[in-house]
Amino acid sequence: MLKIVPQGHRGEVIEIETWIAASGRNGIRRDWVLRDLASGVVFAVATSTLVAMNKQTRRVSKMPEEVRDELSTFFCEKQVLKENFKERIEKLNDKAKYVTSDLKPMWSDLDVNYHVNNVKYVKWILETVPEGFLKDHQISSMILEYKRECTSCDIVRSLCEPQEDEILGCINGAPFKYTHLLQIQGDTKNADVVRARTLWKLKKMSTVPFST
Amino acid sequence: MLKIVPQGHRGEVIEIETWIAASGRNGIRRDWVLRDLASGVVFAVATSTLVAMNKQTRRVSKMPEEVRDELSTFFCEKQVLKENFKERIEKLNDKAKYVTSDLKPMWSDLDVNYHVNNVKYVKWILETVPEGFLKDHQISSMILEYKRECTSCDIVRSLCEPQEDEILGCINGAPFKYTHLLQIQGDTKNADVVRARTLWKLKKMSTVPFST
Repeated sequence: MLKIVPQGHRGEVIEIETWIAASGRNGIRRDWVLRDLASGVVFAVATSTLVAMNKQTRRVSKMPEEVRDELSTFFCEKQVLKENFKERIEKLNDKAKYVTSDLKPMWSDLDVNYHVNNVKYVKWILETVPEGFLKDHQISSMILEYKRECTSCDIVRSLCEPQEDEILGCINGAPFKYTHLLQIQGDTKNADVVRARTLWKLKKMSTVPFST
Repeated sequence: MLKIVPQGHRGEVIEIETWIAASGRNGIRRDWVLRDLASGVVFAVATSTLVAMNKQTRRVSKMPEEVRDELSTFFCEKQVLKENFKERIEKLNDKAKYVTSDLKPMWSDLDVNYHVNNVKYVKWILETVPEGFLKDHQISSMILEYKRECTSCDIVRSLCEPQEDEILGCINGAPFKYTHLLQIQGDTKNADVVRARTLWKLKKMSTVPFST
């Protein structure tokens, strides 16, 4: 989960604070705070949960005691996002309003393990949001539910469905909440790579540095 | 023109030195040196030439005297690449050995002027070099000849032709020199975006941090 508060500007020096904590029996949580070093203004906060996986069975694996003992000396109970964001992200299907197909990882998208870098997932997700909406809105939060890795051989499609937000409502009929799904394309099982939810707000025009 | 000497490593602090100089009557040259701050070892050097263009006629335009006078106080005659690299880059055609078609700019590839960021050109160029070659070789220099801008509406194809290098020669038949062309696809004139040349050397296996 990522929450973006105001936006940083070119030339500002950013400070990143990060720490780990236990998450349930087998998980580890990592929190982040990004702030402007000079003013202390927080730009973004994020939290993520990691679990160990057995590479053969692809099931969640118990964390070995000695690993947990070693890590636990660094555990910090401070929590960056108090609210419960564990809402269910529904699984989209072929009826999704916006679909981008034939997304192929580039050589430069791969990390040292030959897996597609997670940043690319975010780019694919945002790519399917209509361009007109992207021009007028800025993202305010994002939840990613990672399902499986993606390699250079995979072809991906990105599904996207706008949803009326019951709390924020809509201005001029523009949606503020999107549900997303990245899937391996052509796979008989349509294996999920990532489910996601994004929340958006109208851009403040004063923050646009140049006219377009 | 970019020349890469050894490679930097994670965590190293890099120093970037850059300056401008006159280039002919209407041009400006900008040079860069990237070095490891601790050791002073130079990682990469680069130079580029810029000219002003009339947006309507799309012809090179004379630099106004007052602009030149203002800039000239910053001119520094130091030159990072002494040798003459102005070799002709031949224009590839449909017979090129490797072609990647249907390259579409993503929303995240656009800059504030809604033009495709130049970094994407480099990615498209490298994408067309065969994967097997990329795994064993590292780029040592690149010349880019910028022809025109590319916007989010354009679909691009990347052509690539390996060439025997007369000076370096070839080891095991692998080419060390590639010629590249990025073109607007479907355009009746096949408008050129960038012509490029890359030089490559065998990877030193000791620099790979993880086995794959």
